[in-house]
Order: sequence, then C-alpha cells, then structure tokens
Amino acid sequence: MAGYTIGVDFGTSSVRAVVVDTTNGSTAGTAVFNYPSGTQGVIQDPRDPHLARQNPADYLEGLRTSIVKALAQADRVDAFARNKVIGIGCDTTGSTPLPIDAEVRPLAFDPRFQDNPAAQAWLWKDHTAAEEAAAITALAREIAPEYLAPIGGTYSAEWWWSKIWRCLKDAPEVFDAAYSWVELADFIPATLAGVEHADDIVRCVCAAGHKAMYAEAWGGLPSKAFLFRLDPQLAALRDRLYDAAWPPGRPVGALSAAWAETLGLPEGITIAMGGFDAHYGAVGSGIRTGTLVKIIGTSTCDCAVAPERIGPADDIPGICGSVPGSIMPDYIGIEAGQSAVGDLLTWWVETICEGSDVLHGRLSAEAATIGPGASGLVALDWNNGNRTILVDPRLSGLIVGQTLATTRAEIYRALIEATAFGARAIVERLREHGVPIERVVCCGGIAEKNDLFMQIYADVIGQPMLVAGSPQTPALGAAIAAAVTAGGEAGGYDDWHDAQDAMTSVRDRSYTPDPDAVAVYDRLYGIYRRLHDGFGGVGGAMDYGSLMKELLTIAHDARA
Amino acid sequence: MAGYTIGVDFGTSSVRAVVVDTTNGSTAGTAVFNYPSGTQGVIQDPRDPHLARQNPADYLEGLRTSIVKALAQADRVDAFARNKVIGIGCDTTGSTPLPIDAEVRPLAFDPRFQDNPAAQAWLWKDHTAAEEAAAITALAREIAPEYLAPIGGTYSAEWWWSKIWRCLKDAPEVFDAAYSWVELADFIPATLAGVEHADDIVRCVCAAGHKAMYAEAWGGLPSKAFLFRLDPQLAALRDRLYDAAWPPGRPVGALSAAWAETLGLPEGITIAMGGFDAHYGAVGSGIRTGTLVKIIGTSTCDCAVAPERIGPADDIPGICGSVPGSIMPDYIGIEAGQSAVGDLLTWWVETICEGSDVLHGRLSAEAATIGPGASGLVALDWNNGNRTILVDPRLSGLIVGQTLATTRAEIYRALIEATAFGARAIVERLREHGVPIERVVCCGGIAEKNDLFMQIYADVIGQPMLVAGSPQTPALGAAIAAAVTAGGEAGGYDDWHDAQDAMTSVRDRSYTPDPDAVAVYDRLYGIYRRLHDGFGGVGGAMDYGSLMKELLTIAHDARA
Repeated sequence: MAGYTIGVDFGTSSVRAVVVDTTNGSTAGTAVFNYPSGTQGVIQDPRDPHLARQNPADYLEGLRTSIVKALAQADRVDAFARNKVIGIGCDTTGSTPLPIDAEVRPLAFDPRFQDNPAAQAWLWKDHTAAEEAAAITALAREIAPEYLAPIGGTYSAEWWWSKIWRCLKDAPEVFDAAYSWVELADFIPATLAGVEHADDIVRCVCAAGHKAMYAEAWGGLPSKAFLFRLDPQLAALRDRLYDAAWPPGRPVGALSAAWAETLGLPEGITIAMGGFDAHYGAVGSGIRTGTLVKIIGTSTCDCAVAPERIGPADDIPGICGSVPGSIMPDYIGIEAGQSAVGDLLTWWVETICEGSDVLHGRLSAEAATIGPGASGLVALDWNNGNRTILVDPRLSGLIVGQTLATTRAEIYRALIEATAFGARAIVERLREHGVPIERVVCCGGIAEKNDLFMQIYADVIGQPMLVAGSPQTPALGAAIAAAVTAGGEAGGYDDWHDAQDAMTSVRDRSYTPDPDAVAVYDRLYGIYRRLHDGFGGVGGAMDYGSLMKELLTIAHDARA
Repeated sequence: MAGYTIGVDFGTSSVRAVVVDTTNGSTAGTAVFNYPSGTQGVIQDPRDPHLARQNPADYLEGLRTSIVKALAQADRVDAFARNKVIGIGCDTTGSTPLPIDAEVRPLAFDPRFQDNPAAQAWLWKDHTAAEEAAAITALAREIAPEYLAPIGGTYSAEWWWSKIWRCLKDAPEVFDAAYSWVELADFIPATLAGVEHADDIVRCVCAAGHKAMYAEAWGGLPSKAFLFRLDPQLAALRDRLYDAAWPPGRPVGALSAAWAETLGLPEGITIAMGGFDAHYGAVGSGIRTGTLVKIIGTSTCDCAVAPERIGPADDIPGICGSVPGSIMPDYIGIEAGQSAVGDLLTWWVETICEGSDVLHGRLSAEAATIGPGASGLVALDWNNGNRTILVDPRLSGLIVGQTLATTRAEIYRALIEATAFGARAIVERLREHGVPIERVVCCGGIAEKNDLFMQIYADVIGQPMLVAGSPQTPALGAAIAAAVTAGGEAGGYDDWHDAQDAMTSVRDRSYTPDPDAVAVYDRLYGIYRRLHDGFGGVGGAMDYGSLMKELLTIAHDARA
C-alpha cells in the first residue's frame, strides 16, 4: 500500500513542507512560507548585532500555510489522497530554544511579553550569550570535563544553556515566567500532537546531546550541583526540563483534532520526533555506516554514523559532536563542520570584490582554467574561526603566496581549495579514529550548483563526490522519519535503511578525482596542514622558512 | 655671482631637464620629453615578458629636446641668462648598460644592429638574465664571496654583468661588435663632453660599485680569472672596460662645441659625472650623516651616508649596497630598498579590486578612518620578494587576521602598514650597525601625495617624516653635482653640504608620530617581525599558535 508522509523543514528565513511518496521518495506537493517578522524572518536589535530572535507565531503560521499549500498541490496528483498520509515529521534549526508556559504556549504569545525579545525564540545564530558560554566552558573544564567531551571541548554561545542563562540575566521577568524551555525541534511536534503539559514534551536526543550536555552516562542533563554553580535558578529550572531524550523513531503522539481540522488531514496520524536540519538532511541523503554526508552551504555540516560506540567520544579530538542516537537509532551520530564555506566565497566576491552573482560566475569560470597548484597560493579557511578539528572561534584567515600578478580568480580558487583542505582534515580525523568513510554524498546549494567547487573537493579529498538526489534533503529526511515512525503496517517502514533505500537517491552526475590533481593537492595539503597546525596552536614551533619557496616550486611544476 | 646649472633626469619613460638657480635651488625652467620608442619608452618582446630595452636614440633626442625647452622657459626669467649656466649634471636609471663601439657610438646606431634588441640599452628592469645572475652568484659565493659582500650577497639579473653575459649568449654578433659597454649614467656625460674614445669615458663608482662588483679593495672590476670562469670572452672584454671608477665631483669634461651649438649654451662649461637617480635624488633631498632619504614610489629606495667605513660592508647583513663614494665623495654610500611599495597598493586596487585612481582615493579615505590595529590584520610586503633585509626574490605575500567582515579598505591599510613595517626593519638594521638615523626625508610620488601613507610611516617608524621641498629631487641632485663640480669660483660650490644647504629644502608639511599609534604599532611590528623572520627563513622554528589571538586582542583594544 502506497503511503505519503509530510516533511516540514524550518529554516532560518522560511519553512518548507514537502508531501512525499513513501514508495520512492518522490514529491507530490511542496510549498514555502517566508517568515513575516523582522528582517527575512530574523528579529534584530540595531544596538546589538549579536541578537537574532524569531517570532514563534511565524512558526505556527508557517506550519499551517506550508502544509495546506503543499497538500493542495498534492491533491492534483492522481495517486495521492489525503487519507494516504500516514505521518508528519519536521526538522528545524538549532539550538533554537524558546521559553514556554506549563501549557506549552510560547511566552511570546503572552501580552506581557509579546514585544520582549527575550520571550521569542533564540535563533541558532544569536550570539548574545558569549559570556555565559565562556563561563559554562570554564566550569565544565574545572569540575565536569566529561560534559564537554562529546561536544568538542567548548560550550558555544549558540547553545541551549548559554541562551537560557543569558535570558535570566537580561530579562529575569521572562525567565521567571517560563515554566520550561523547549527546542524548536521539539516544540513543533508537541504542537501538532496537542501535548498539553510541558512535562509531557518528548525531547529529541539530537538537540539534548549536541547542545544541552545531555547524556545517559551521567543521568541526563548536567547535574543540579553543576547548574547551581552557574546560577541557583538554573538548577531550579532543571526540575522543569527533562530527564530523558530519545533517538528518532519514537512517536511524539498523534495529530490532534484541532490541527487535523486546520490542515485537512486525518486525525491521529503519526507525529514523528523532530530533529535538526543537518541530521535529517543526512538521513535524506542516505547516511549509513561508511557514508559521510556533507551539507554544503554558507557553512558546512558533516554527518556520519558509526554502528556502535567507537570508543569514548573524546577519543575523536576536535569533532564537535558524537551522540548516541542523534541521527538514527542504534548508531552514534557524529557531527563535524566548517564555520565558513560559501560565506568565505561570498566574502571574497561581495565584500572584497564588490561583485554579485554575475561575478561569482565569472570568477568561477576563470578559476576553472587555473591548474591545481598553479597560483602558488595556499589559504586557511578560518575567516569565521574553526569549528572542526580545532574548535576555536578565535582563529582567523590567512593567505600566503601572492605576487604582484596574483588575480582575484586565483584567490577565489585558493579559498575554495582552503575549504576543501579543511574538509579533508575532518575526513582524516574521522578515519584515524575508526569511523569508516567509503562514500561521500553532498547536498546543499553549493553541491547542486558549483561544478568547480565539487571537482576540487573530489581532487583534494581523493574520493568521488556524489550529490544527493533530492534538493530538499532535510524535509525528505523528516518525511522518512515519519514513515519509519508510522511503521510498515501503516504503509511506512520498520527499518531506517529500507526506508532510505526506497526514498533516497543520488544524482547521475558525480565528481571523480583526477589522479594528476590529487598528486598536486597532496603536496599543497601538506603545506596547508603545517599552517593549520602551527597557527591553530596544535603544532608547537614550526619552521616555515622554506614554505614560500615550496609554493613557488609547486606553481612552477604546475605550469610546466 | 648667481649661477645656474642644469640637471637632467633620465627616467623609465621620459627625460626631464631642470634649470636651477645655484643660489637657492629654485627652478628657472623645466621640460619633459617622453621616449617615442616602444610602449611608453620601453621596447618589449611579446614572446618574452622579461625583456625590457630602450632605444639610445631616444636618450639623445630627449637630452636635446628637454634642455632646449627648459632653457627656452628659463629665458623668460629676468635674472637668467644663458652665459650664467656653469654646468650640466645628469642622473639615470641603472643598471642600464648599452654596447658601444670604440668611438662611443651605441651599436644600436649601426645599421647592422638597429633592429636588434641586444644592441639597444638593457633597461634596469630587463629580467632576461636570471640564469646568468644565478651562475655569477654561485661562482662568487664559491671563489670570491668578497665580491658579493657590499651588494647584499646575491648578484641580480638586473645588473651589468648578467646582462652583458646574456647578450654574449643571445646575440654573439652584437657582443663581438661591441668595443665596450657603458652605463647610461656614464654615456650621457661622455656624450655631452664629446669623449672620442671609449677608453676615455669617466665611470661613476655609483654604477661600478653597486652593479658591477667594482671595488678598489680588489683592484677594480672582478679579476680576469673570475670572469674567465664565467666565459673567456667576458675576461677578454674586461680589458676594454675600466680600471678606475670615481665618486661624483670629478669633471667628466667640458661641453663640446657640437652640443653647445645644439643646446644654445656656452662651449666648455662643466659636465659633471652622472649618477643613479636614487643617489642624486638623495643628494637633492639633503642627504648627510644622520639623514635617511626614502624615495617612495612603485618601489622604495633608501639612501644613507656614513662618514667613514663603519665596518666591513658585510657587517650590515642584508643591506643591498654599501659603496665608498657612491652618493657623495668621502662618505660610504648605503643603499637599501623595498621591491614593492606603491606597486603593492596598485596590485590591491587595480588587479584585485579592479579599480582606478578614484578607488585609490576612496580606499585611502576609508582606511584613514580605521584606527591602528583595529582591523586585526598583519601582512608581509613581499609580493615582489624582499630586497632588504632578507635579499630574497623568492619570497611572496602573506595576509593574516581576516574575518568575514574584513573590508577592502582594511586590507589596503594593512598593506600600507606592511610596507611601513618593512621600512622599519631597514631602519633598525642600519641603526644596529652604527649608521645613525636622526632624520628621515622622503621624496617621490607617494611622499608628496599620500597623507595617510606618510602618517602611518611616522607612526610605525616612530620618527617624523619630512618631505623634500623639490618635486624633482634627482634632477636637483644632478644640478647640485654640476654646481659642486663647477666649483665656487665659477659660481657654484666647493663643498657638497654648502650646496645642499643653499639648494635643498623640506616642506612645511611634515608628519609627526602620534604616541598612541606608536604604541599600537610597536605591538603589531612585533608580530610582523615574527612572521618576517619565520617565513623569511632567518628565524628557525617559531611558535605562531597564539598569533591570531594576539591580533584579536590588539583589535579589541584598538576598538575600545
């Protein structure tokens, strides 16, 4: 029996719903809703560039509108019928926590707080809590280093506890009024399922483990004693949060009568657990043991899974996250990433060269005519710090090898290469620690559009680059989660890999390493690594006295 | 008795004559002649980008036209009369050798060779002789390291012997037909004086000592044995070159009847020795013990004099030249330099940002609003290698500290700062070796026009930057040389410093170090020096693990 599931992807500026055929993953209907609040959906504060919030009303209006429109489109497909829809899944940005009352209502809906930025959702890229993050990191390093081991050794200003603590300082009236806090990834399913009390929200381990220092090993969230050392009120809050978090596959509940009415769907269909966009994007790209999924956009998120604990999490130094069950049940979910990839090229083209898309295209075409190594340039890809494998936001960019003849296209290419070298460092680190990587599947805007970029990645990493078949892998992954959560009997699947085999694909067009280019990039990567380790503070004293001459030699050989 | 002298400045694209009042250095008349041959005066070869030659006929036509026109202008000055002109001096680019016959006629004037590039003048920036330079350097290091000690330890492709040897290989018919070779700086005075045989040309030690490995200490030019090892024909040529070279002040001869007729000047007036533009520019900027003259243009040439031998020349490692008498008699002439200064900014503005003069102005204005250290950037100024103090053309550029918010104006400023740090490294090296620097006088296009640049130099070097009064310091220096060579009785001077006191000046506008900026730049210079030494190959292994964080701290402090 053919079934359909709905995947809903909550991005930074918009939400997209996709109605998916569970037999083959094809799209029956899709619709996007742009958040109306703030600037492109983000509430900002002219006095504080670090502030980035979202209006929870946008989420609910987007949830409704995008599904209603996607279903209307699906209605035009012959095989589709609304009673064949067996479940809904969603993915969201994160960590994006919001304060709620005991009845799971966002405090932003309370007239007392509706204009208070602290009562809104604290968007993933809100950076107001740098101080709190530093204090949490310092305390954990002192008394509970195990908390940091699975998340890369440093607690981030972008994450759960930093933001909640910041709210406590900035807007104690909001903190006091909040019964609990919830990640957006958990709030949406709870809403659809009509969860009536905050204590009953099902929490995903993906947010809990990667962002809230949750682990079964120490009994869930950080201890009250730990939180007390930060602030006694955080310790008190812990009682109103959660003790357990779950891998995907566990049903959150069933579609409530009210939302069934709103959406025009059967009441009681399965509501799957939410998850982060990158994780469900990995599912929708066919992640499994041996497959690395790279989601390449303004930044890059790398996801891998390993079938069993491959050793203590801190045995993979510098990997941002390693959490059991965070991507799929029964696997360790491993997350790594680079903080500036597309952003690095945008910086070069738009900020430095003051160009636009046309110039992106022109530089890309020019850069494609430059042979590997021929520019004599090497760059570090750290204009936005290094997320993996150095986990250090206080690093910056470096370019070396320029002459008076160096062109903007050569630097453009060198910056792409720098991100590829950073990607290779991650692959090598994972492999060194027993995570097999035999296949690389890429998704995201750059993977779909930029041939030069993808070919350089194949040549630098020395591995074919495949591209995911769906242009909406996170929504597809959420739809797969709904299909598996609904189960085989309902028209879905009992097994994640069966669902992925049926519902995901890769494109015909892939990128194969060129052996000559691989050889040149092996030499350049050696230089990159020396700079990476030396300037990254992990190499000790390094001798760079011959480095510029080595680059000249590589360039000379490449031009010969 | 008021006298007048004429200074003639042979640049890369044009020649300028200036008629100068010897009592106060003021200009009575001036005229420029643009070389008609090639592209902006330079003969190029589309098949060989390293080739740069000039047509000697352009020199003679330029000599005639510029003086005739400058005199016509001077004729309109009441106090001026042609019989008050007591001498002519000239300065030229160098090393710019040309092959001549025994009668001092350029071989380029011989119909057999008129279209042969090897028979033209080999312009200073001709780089066809890289192989020969490397071979000369290698042999000298092996058997006669003393030859290289006063000229920085490496023989250049731009210099005399490299070019002559290259001619021998490329165009043996030209080499064979040449009775001798002459630097342009010696050819012009010999022409004006009507020297009839090549053996009688008076050679300046400025070209001989800085470019031809001449020194009294080893009996003049390199030994025949040394030259024989390069090529027996070079050894044979040595007999037709010269045994002695002289500091300025020695008359080359008297204006010939033919040229007196051509120019409309009294026959028999003094013809002074020629010299390189930078050296006479230093004279025209008031150089003396304790004064560093910086000629700042596309590249920078630094000149200093020391009253007596301050130690063996190789006691100032990395200084390109240290030659007795090369700038003024009785002083060691010391020459240093940076290979890309204005060129580095031109690269950024024109090649990278694809802008023109308007953008130069805009970036300069924006950069002026950025506080020292605030960008968090440091760059190495080596896009064209390092001439002083590392003497290594195989070095390249480096920029570190960029973020996604870094602007083109911040990099523009960082590149200016990089050249200023390079300038400071030269000043420190000279001081460490006993060359006093109490006063810095700048000349050249950048010194006259770019306030931001000059203020940064004052702040980085920690010393006021003065600007020479004359916009034509090389021509003025040549006119001073003519006045001193003519002597006090003729209406000139017997003493160089008396002539400089009367004829040179500095502008009212100077640039004073700001103590706050000096303090920031002291910190940044420390970082620059660590990169300089490490990447320059003189620092051994260095620990850069904290460098990016130090830059962030400096930027943070600067913005506070």
